[in-house]
Amino acid sequence: MHESCSSCPPVVGDVEASVGYCWPVRVYYEDTDAGGVVYHATYLNYMERARTEWLRALGYAQEALVRERGILFAVHRLSVDYLYPARLDDQLCVRVGALKIRRASMEFSQQIQSKCASYPRLLTRATVKIACLAAKNMTPCPIPDPILDAFHTWENRRCEC
Amino acid sequence: MHESCSSCPPVVGDVEASVGYCWPVRVYYEDTDAGGVVYHATYLNYMERARTEWLRALGYAQEALVRERGILFAVHRLSVDYLYPARLDDQLCVRVGALKIRRASMEFSQQIQSKCASYPRLLTRATVKIACLAAKNMTPCPIPDPILDAFHTWENRRCEC
Amino acid sequence: MHESCSSCPPVVGDVEASVGYCWPVRVYYEDTDAGGVVYHATYLNYMERARTEWLRALGYAQEALVRERGILFAVHRLSVDYLYPARLDDQLCVRVGALKIRRASMEFSQQIQSKCASYPRLLTRATVKIACLAAKNMTPCPIPDPILDAFHTWENRRCEC
Amino acid sequence: MHESCSSCPPVVGDVEASVGYCWPVRVYYEDTDAGGVVYHATYLNYMERARTEWLRALGYAQEALVRERGILFAVHRLSVDYLYPARLDDQLCVRVGALKIRRASMEFSQQIQSKCASYPRLLTRATVKIACLAAKNMTPCPIPDPILDAFHTWENRRCEC
Repeated sequence: MHESCSSCPPVVGDVEASVGYCWPVRVYYEDTDAGGVVYHATYLNYMERARTEWLRALGYAQEALVRERGILFAVHRLSVDYLYPARLDDQLCVRVGALKIRRASMEFSQQIQSKCASYPRLLTRATVKIACLAAKNMTPCPIPDPILDAFHTWENRRCEC
Repeated sequence: MHESCSSCPPVVGDVEASVGYCWPVRVYYEDTDAGGVVYHATYLNYMERARTEWLRALGYAQEALVRERGILFAVHRLSVDYLYPARLDDQLCVRVGALKIRRASMEFSQQIQSKCASYPRLLTRATVKIACLAAKNMTPCPIPDPILDAFHTWENRRCEC
Repeated sequence: MHESCSSCPPVVGDVEASVGYCWPVRVYYEDTDAGGVVYHATYLNYMERARTEWLRALGYAQEALVRERGILFAVHRLSVDYLYPARLDDQLCVRVGALKIRRASMEFSQQIQSKCASYPRLLTRATVKIACLAAKNMTPCPIPDPILDAFHTWENRRCEC
Repeated sequence: MHESCSSCPPVVGDVEASVGYCWPVRVYYEDTDAGGVVYHATYLNYMERARTEWLRALGYAQEALVRERGILFAVHRLSVDYLYPARLDDQLCVRVGALKIRRASMEFSQQIQSKCASYPRLLTRATVKIACLAAKNMTPCPIPDPILDAFHTWENRRCEC
């Protein structure tokens, strides 16, 4: 079963729309630029908020991960397709899906979808690779077992649907 | 009666805590700096989000104000006291209270309060003066009557408590 | 004698224009919002860049202050008047002047001036109080003597003009 | 001949280091996050500043392009590899090279290199596809001929070296 906010309609004509977790984001002036739309780097913030809330939903807050386990999750690689712009006051749905979960890294499929239009429109599509780093020296380290288990449990639950 | 989210406790020892509207904000990595706390300019974003949601609660979205009425609300003056820092993953309550409502401007009292600590702590206190501007030339113009009425109604409702 | 970039003309009709240090800033899309002008919180970034470069000009880089001396300078209070907006591609001059230098804090007068117009225009005027904090617990601590001496030397040099 | 600031050393062991234009960027607190390094979305801002200055060096300012020609350049697709983090106070060199110039879009190779270390280190490597849009409706439109000519002249000059 997919976790998602009940008010998020499926994305029309997009086979990847089934990615699992969904976090709502509202567009404020701070997010826009003089072109009248959301600034291209801001979508990366939105996608990180969604990953953070997905992690929190699994029981792990990032600040506690640094403080208690000495690890942090850092973006290692990303690619983004900008299909349509988001605008001031838009209500967005930012989706998180797991593509690959490895010993010291994860790869996510992410989508940003507009909820404002009369039909939902896919605005941005991204792949984001996250590395697990030791906070003390910023070098790669294994994802702690309980967290890795939580990821796999979440992933498997998705596959059952 | 004060409009506020029911989960926001009163701020201990702060007579201004009664300011009316409250908007919850979560702190993400994007908001912090290398000092380990929220970057000082980011609190201005938080305060604008709260004013925007207060305005939306009164029935007015900023994007529609520009498009339909040709006006926008711009910060004209502000002063901020930084009392304690907010940190990664903190859940904050951003309050909005009206100090003065004039023909072409408004003055707000705003407070940012931590909800994470065992007791709520006032982190930031600000006064923000907003001017109503004609979008076409960015010059001052009167606040449209229906909006002004909504402001006064909200203000009076506060006074009854 | 005032330190300033030679290409910065005096601000017309502004007695405070003599504030000492000047740092040039260019406006990019990232700095603007859908109102078509620089977002109000962004001016705080500009003012911090200028304070950082003023400090560097005195011989102190912020990263080294944390690493070698365990201190950081944090904004404690600020007030800003927004007079005219800056726009995309504008070339700005951000000025730093010392109002008060105390044992554990400093107060600056800052101004942001447009260099693009046919005559220079004062866009933003601010007072910023900075506190010296111990990095380990973010509590106030005295400004180290050599740095305090550098501040006073700079301040006195200003007074000679 | 490659245009570049004379103080930018070649990147050790990187065949792509020859990309043409270089823009210096300093890291401030605003750019960093609580992980102690530059926030991952901020590198996109740096890369846009470099593209903007490259365009300005060719004679075209973005604000004037919107106002006089009704066009703007928007990011259509990007991919970024984060190799090493930049830190507070680092002095960076942001490079811009043209991969492909088409009728209504351009593809750039961009690199961010540290200048602070005893040897220059490649921190971030990106490919950015830019589309030319009509400002009035944000739909694709051809790059105006004089600008396209300027791009090709710049590209050919690179090939002569």
